[in-house]
Amino acid sequence: MIFASDNTGPAAPEIMDAVLHANAGYQMPYGNDTIMPGVTQKIRDLFEAPEASVHLVATGTAANALALATLANPWDGVFMHRIAHAEEDECGAPEFYTNGAKLVLVDGADGKMTPEALDRAILATGDKGVHGVQRGPVTITNITEIGTAYSLDQIRALTDVANSYGLKTHLDGARFANACAALDCTPAEMTWKAGIDGVSFGGTKNGCLGVEAVVFFDPAQAWELELRRKRGAHLFSKHRFLSAQMNAYVTDGLWLRLAERANVRAAELAEGIKTVPGASLEAEPAGNMIFAHIPRGAHKRAMAAGAKYYLFPFNASLDGPEDETIRCRFVCDWSCDGETVQRLLGLLRG
Amino acid sequence: MIFASDNTGPAAPEIMDAVLHANAGYQMPYGNDTIMPGVTQKIRDLFEAPEASVHLVATGTAANALALATLANPWDGVFMHRIAHAEEDECGAPEFYTNGAKLVLVDGADGKMTPEALDRAILATGDKGVHGVQRGPVTITNITEIGTAYSLDQIRALTDVANSYGLKTHLDGARFANACAALDCTPAEMTWKAGIDGVSFGGTKNGCLGVEAVVFFDPAQAWELELRRKRGAHLFSKHRFLSAQMNAYVTDGLWLRLAERANVRAAELAEGIKTVPGASLEAEPAGNMIFAHIPRGAHKRAMAAGAKYYLFPFNASLDGPEDETIRCRFVCDWSCDGETVQRLLGLLRG
Amino acid sequence: MIFASDNTGPAAPEIMDAVLHANAGYQMPYGNDTIMPGVTQKIRDLFEAPEASVHLVATGTAANALALATLANPWDGVFMHRIAHAEEDECGAPEFYTNGAKLVLVDGADGKMTPEALDRAILATGDKGVHGVQRGPVTITNITEIGTAYSLDQIRALTDVANSYGLKTHLDGARFANACAALDCTPAEMTWKAGIDGVSFGGTKNGCLGVEAVVFFDPAQAWELELRRKRGAHLFSKHRFLSAQMNAYVTDGLWLRLAERANVRAAELAEGIKTVPGASLEAEPAGNMIFAHIPRGAHKRAMAAGAKYYLFPFNASLDGPEDETIRCRFVCDWSCDGETVQRLLGLLRG
Amino acid sequence: MIFASDNTGPAAPEIMDAVLHANAGYQMPYGNDTIMPGVTQKIRDLFEAPEASVHLVATGTAANALALATLANPWDGVFMHRIAHAEEDECGAPEFYTNGAKLVLVDGADGKMTPEALDRAILATGDKGVHGVQRGPVTITNITEIGTAYSLDQIRALTDVANSYGLKTHLDGARFANACAALDCTPAEMTWKAGIDGVSFGGTKNGCLGVEAVVFFDPAQAWELELRRKRGAHLFSKHRFLSAQMNAYVTDGLWLRLAERANVRAAELAEGIKTVPGASLEAEPAGNMIFAHIPRGAHKRAMAAGAKYYLFPFNASLDGPEDETIRCRFVCDWSCDGETVQRLLGLLRG
Repeated sequence: MIFASDNTGPAAPEIMDAVLHANAGYQMPYGNDTIMPGVTQKIRDLFEAPEASVHLVATGTAANALALATLANPWDGVFMHRIAHAEEDECGAPEFYTNGAKLVLVDGADGKMTPEALDRAILATGDKGVHGVQRGPVTITNITEIGTAYSLDQIRALTDVANSYGLKTHLDGARFANACAALDCTPAEMTWKAGIDGVSFGGTKNGCLGVEAVVFFDPAQAWELELRRKRGAHLFSKHRFLSAQMNAYVTDGLWLRLAERANVRAAELAEGIKTVPGASLEAEPAGNMIFAHIPRGAHKRAMAAGAKYYLFPFNASLDGPEDETIRCRFVCDWSCDGETVQRLLGLLRG
Repeated sequence: MIFASDNTGPAAPEIMDAVLHANAGYQMPYGNDTIMPGVTQKIRDLFEAPEASVHLVATGTAANALALATLANPWDGVFMHRIAHAEEDECGAPEFYTNGAKLVLVDGADGKMTPEALDRAILATGDKGVHGVQRGPVTITNITEIGTAYSLDQIRALTDVANSYGLKTHLDGARFANACAALDCTPAEMTWKAGIDGVSFGGTKNGCLGVEAVVFFDPAQAWELELRRKRGAHLFSKHRFLSAQMNAYVTDGLWLRLAERANVRAAELAEGIKTVPGASLEAEPAGNMIFAHIPRGAHKRAMAAGAKYYLFPFNASLDGPEDETIRCRFVCDWSCDGETVQRLLGLLRG
Repeated sequence: MIFASDNTGPAAPEIMDAVLHANAGYQMPYGNDTIMPGVTQKIRDLFEAPEASVHLVATGTAANALALATLANPWDGVFMHRIAHAEEDECGAPEFYTNGAKLVLVDGADGKMTPEALDRAILATGDKGVHGVQRGPVTITNITEIGTAYSLDQIRALTDVANSYGLKTHLDGARFANACAALDCTPAEMTWKAGIDGVSFGGTKNGCLGVEAVVFFDPAQAWELELRRKRGAHLFSKHRFLSAQMNAYVTDGLWLRLAERANVRAAELAEGIKTVPGASLEAEPAGNMIFAHIPRGAHKRAMAAGAKYYLFPFNASLDGPEDETIRCRFVCDWSCDGETVQRLLGLLRG
Repeated sequence: MIFASDNTGPAAPEIMDAVLHANAGYQMPYGNDTIMPGVTQKIRDLFEAPEASVHLVATGTAANALALATLANPWDGVFMHRIAHAEEDECGAPEFYTNGAKLVLVDGADGKMTPEALDRAILATGDKGVHGVQRGPVTITNITEIGTAYSLDQIRALTDVANSYGLKTHLDGARFANACAALDCTPAEMTWKAGIDGVSFGGTKNGCLGVEAVVFFDPAQAWELELRRKRGAHLFSKHRFLSAQMNAYVTDGLWLRLAERANVRAAELAEGIKTVPGASLEAEPAGNMIFAHIPRGAHKRAMAAGAKYYLFPFNASLDGPEDETIRCRFVCDWSCDGETVQRLLGLLRG
């Protein structure tokens, strides 16, 4: 009953098999393995982007920080939602990689920037000539940090704002597959067809051991990203193990199947939470992550039985009135089974 | 009729004389001139801080950025008011000098952080272990960016919050002298006696050509600041000209007299604005800077006659309804005379 | 017949098994997996250092850059051999992570700094007060970049110099195990007993998929390194896969057995090269890496038959006089077998 | 008898008068003063470069560091002489401003890089693909750090090498005027006509209080430099005082007259040193700086009489054999008079 994060789950067997298989014999290092060309091709096919550059790293923070550092100048503001992972959970990695760009926080309900708020934030930045930070890229997270999904139209509305100022756009796709599954759209539709210039295409949270692809639809900055990756110490010598993971991930739609599975479980859990007395969802979840407000008593029962998930604020105490609600987050990964979901729901219901 | 900024005015004659005088003959470079020891001593006396370290630079941004970089780790949040100069007007200099620390913005009316808002901001920072930025120093600006002044009690309330978390505190004193004059307090009272660890003691806006002193009451980090100053290219070879300015500035209370003069003029102007039909002050000014909302018609008259000051937003148009108010800022410097103030008021009144 | 690098070889079966095994079920992320405490303990035992802090990352460059950034100030010089990996092959990663420290290059034959040259370099650094970079840590690579090994006495002689200036010392142990095997010493003897403060204990080149441990014998800077690791995007969410690799690596002496195997093969190869007509070793190899000068004709035979290894300079041409020697490098990894070595030697001999 | 440095001397009266004069009345800040347009025009005229961008700062280190940061990527090597000021005397300012570029040191006698050594250094950099730092700009210092001057042909030979690799070139002109005087050439001839892309046109050492102009002949990167200057805290609010200095400096050839005066004195001193028993020049001086080897006894006499200049190494002792030579440096500034030179020579001769 571990619903703490999709990074607590195991790797999918297809991914693990690929890693094992890749171990046979010798392979040239640093991305020159024989698997990588196929990965690049498959990702280009997947995104319907025959010119795209593809770069593998092992962590989502690396993917985001390297992509943003490539798109932003040190003196730029980088626009993102107020609760973006890059703002809250990366210990300043974007600031480190960009050499001090400023994260400009944009408001919006349900974890989603509104075009109006983005426009206001951009307008308010860069109106002071040399004295203020300049206008830099916009980064959008889908699935958002509170489990909702931007629709294609919503993404397009944001990239339209960005483009009206000549700004680049990035999609933080730590849960890219879950968003695609939720929107029932293609990777191309969620990215360049919606005005996105670069994407962090996440695998780690969705059944891989640790691999993410940075994809730039215009390869003009590909070499810069390669240099930043090396300089950031993110170029793997035994790169074959990154290639192998990503290769299996984008073969035969595995990436999507895994995400669909996780989304289904989360939908079951969300439906069930609505039936827990005193409980409510914070927002209607679209992918595999749920934020809810649930009475303390229910939390106590679930946790006593071994359920693991996060309460907020982090130091939220289980001592207190039973019927007072505590904010919490559940994440289902690809390996989560329906029985476990029902068991958790049973405990919450009491 | 130039009220654009206190950095548009001339240097005071005492300061200019000192620069001229310092030009005689040879002087060892890089702070080893014969004037600097006296400067250090006088500033220590002024602040009643016999151990303080004193470091001269030529710009306020340098003073702030170097002081904050010395007090903060790269992975820290630096707490400041939402509209702090370091956030809005330094093109990311603090981020550059700190190697990417995050400026954490704190709310509060009248340009002043409240202790409650500061406490909330600190609490919300550093509650994520290694994942979030850590808690770093607090920087307070007095005179604030909208012309008000923190009282000594208000400064103490903020430093009490900071100290309760073990955090260091910095005072951005670009208008330090105007604040001292406004509060009728001593430099020691406004700084270390109120819990401040380091101060940017500004001279440029108050009658100097370009000189600011970074003062650390605990000299433990003095050598680090010296290295950061050199590495930031802010150590002057002909340092004598910085020493000479600061020496004159802190001799015989010149720093305070100049500020008092500017404050008096601003008070006259503020009183007068209250009598301009349709006009209002944004906040009761304490020092030499006034934010007001004044009808467009009054602005048109004043500007047609050559008055210079800033309208906000920066692209505010003089075309439009005459009685609609436009936000504006007036700053009086030490050299501003009462006649000019009355002339401006006459124009505004129509 | 791939002798290009020890990072071209496969992972050892014990390591791969551990990865597979670690995949079962759920594990908390970011180093909170159940395997990591055992890793820490085993490494402390291995190094006879019960207080040591242990931090896992996936690349050798990350281990070195993070360790050096923790030990050095941005304004420091970092002392290393003129051909150190950190100088030549990391695209400026140490400069990036340290925020611009200067790599000060120290001379010495056979890839080894001499104490005299180190002393000269330290003396020449930091003799200009605030104007020059200051004296920072010393980093020593064992096995060196040209395949030789510092003896314990040679390491001690260098750390004695460093300590005489109060400087910290770091050991770049990308081939730590090969060095231990070559010197027939314990990890403690090669590190803290020889005056080393921190070590990058490499696993990637010696049979792992990608894992390195940064070990600080004094844990005072452990938290800083944790923050730098996160901020550098090197903290793995599915950290269990790093833990599992390192756990297997330091269990039952696997790390040493793998290195011994590689060293034996390299020794056979080195002996054989001495019998290749016209060929000579550049230095007597101690571990698993050999630099040699071999006639072009021999290279042509070997490469025509599929042997892979590097020629220097990188663009060295196979067109030219048959008996002219070309500098080359052979590296044996743990999986290299004696038959392959003899086959290569047969080709070289012609 | 102060020959320690040209930054120990006073400002020229014309410069000081201009500062005084600029103090009258109000001036818009941050480079928007009424003096600056004339400065830009005069510098464009002086350099016969009607498109050039002109940016004023107050220190030579700022000029160099900002120019190099604009010309170099963080992952580049910056090529310079082994004893360049940027390498030895700026506490890592270039590394700080470039975010960690590597200074690649080039050999050459008399403080001058040879084209062959530069070519070797460039070739050896950037031959490792993504693993090594890339090839960045070349910076040339004239007058060199040991007082010699590159001829126009020598500069052209270096820029030819740079250009053959597509690299940009920068001239560190802390003593630009002394070099022009020495070579009897125009500013255009020493810069863009000789293949230079950007120059730090120094005023501080040659009679100003503190002002340097960064000049880019192609203004494509002008805005980037403006942002870097602001972000580096080098944009003066009371910029008029920088403008005024530079304006006087480039009016009516003052810059050249001051340098000629200093050069003449240095030439007299150099000639005289040749007549000091046991003394020798280290290189034939071209401008206003002399390195010599002079017996300890002569130093003792001069210093006892109050002469100030630097001995090398910095801790060189005056205790020891009288006839042993000690390396020393003399610098003549514009205000040095012939009588003082003769007095020094008299003391040295004994």
